[in-house]
Amino acid sequence: MPLVRIDLRKGKSAEYRRAIADGVYQAMLEAINVPAGDRFQVITEHDAAGLIYDPSYLGVPRDDNFVMIQVTLNEGRSQALKSAFYKRIVDLLAANPGVEPRNVMVNLVDVPKGNWSFGNGVAQYAPDTPGA
Amino acid sequence: MPLVRIDLRKGKSAEYRRAIADGVYQAMLEAINVPAGDRFQVITEHDAAGLIYDPSYLGVPRDDNFVMIQVTLNEGRSQALKSAFYKRIVDLLAANPGVEPRNVMVNLVDVPKGNWSFGNGVAQYAPDTPGA
Amino acid sequence: MPLVRIDLRKGKSAEYRRAIADGVYQAMLEAINVPAGDRFQVITEHDAAGLIYDPSYLGVPRDDNFVMIQVTLNEGRSQALKSAFYKRIVDLLAANPGVEPRNVMVNLVDVPKGNWSFGNGVAQYAPDTPGA
Repeated sequence: MPLVRIDLRKGKSAEYRRAIADGVYQAMLEAINVPAGDRFQVITEHDAAGLIYDPSYLGVPRDDNFVMIQVTLNEGRSQALKSAFYKRIVDLLAANPGVEPRNVMVNLVDVPKGNWSFGNGVAQYAPDTPGA
Repeated sequence: MPLVRIDLRKGKSAEYRRAIADGVYQAMLEAINVPAGDRFQVITEHDAAGLIYDPSYLGVPRDDNFVMIQVTLNEGRSQALKSAFYKRIVDLLAANPGVEPRNVMVNLVDVPKGNWSFGNGVAQYAPDTPGA
Repeated sequence: MPLVRIDLRKGKSAEYRRAIADGVYQAMLEAINVPAGDRFQVITEHDAAGLIYDPSYLGVPRDDNFVMIQVTLNEGRSQALKSAFYKRIVDLLAANPGVEPRNVMVNLVDVPKGNWSFGNGVAQYAPDTPGA
């Protein structure tokens, strides 16, 4: 169910962008118990005017390799899981495609399980849905 | 108040995209008691690298006609209403522009009524706003 | 921590778009106690088919200068603060770049403090993070 929005500067290859998306998905599988195949991601490139980041907020130096990752997902995960997710994302993106951890921002938006339909007009995760 | 974000692949006509937006709006009116005229929608097209979907998650076959619909709306609706909304969206989009129900994903994000301003810097829906 | 998404029609200058982003950031500092430097903004331009707004909902006349501002931020702010934020945004955008208050829509999405990582894979705002 996570819906992932990834925003970054223009100028990277499709392979580079795919590697970011792959890493975020892999981190979901490994760190926050997302089921295999639950992958829905929107990646948007921006020119300099379209993606604004502070270059030093909280003492973290950022540059034009900055990546913003916003994930809408089911509520109920502990802070320990969320924190492990952040850590796993930066480790995987550092390995491939080589995004520095300082350039990775993550935001989570929690929603109830009934707030998803994965097709066919059915709320597959709602408690009252057959098979949910 | 719903803010609707629709993401799909590039290559469809403006009429096709408009029909999706019309259908989502119509489903709001019919299924979840959204007032007439409460229509605010952002539609973004993506190339193949920019919109990633799993082709079979939960046994639902998806292809490049996949449409992701994320709706931010007021909290408090029952699961029955939400589920009716999903169903009405896919029925309307199947009729026009002909999106298969298997290709329609929906996600809801619930927010309090005071989280909206529809112009003029006023929180029109907040309980303490005159006329709200 | 606010993550700001600004959507508007194509055709404005980079300076115009920057002034909107500047105004939203300034309103955060002045009205809702956002720390200096906490600025992360995505600005997306759309053609006519990509940004749909009702031209008169709730009696507010809107035209193609319409701007949609969606802000994800920490939960816990009072309605009085939120309402002051809406008002400050429209005042600042009216002053520069000259967006009419009737054309400014704002939506807030509240999340817990642990839902952010500002870099390095750390949940800087989570209660159990050293230094948080």
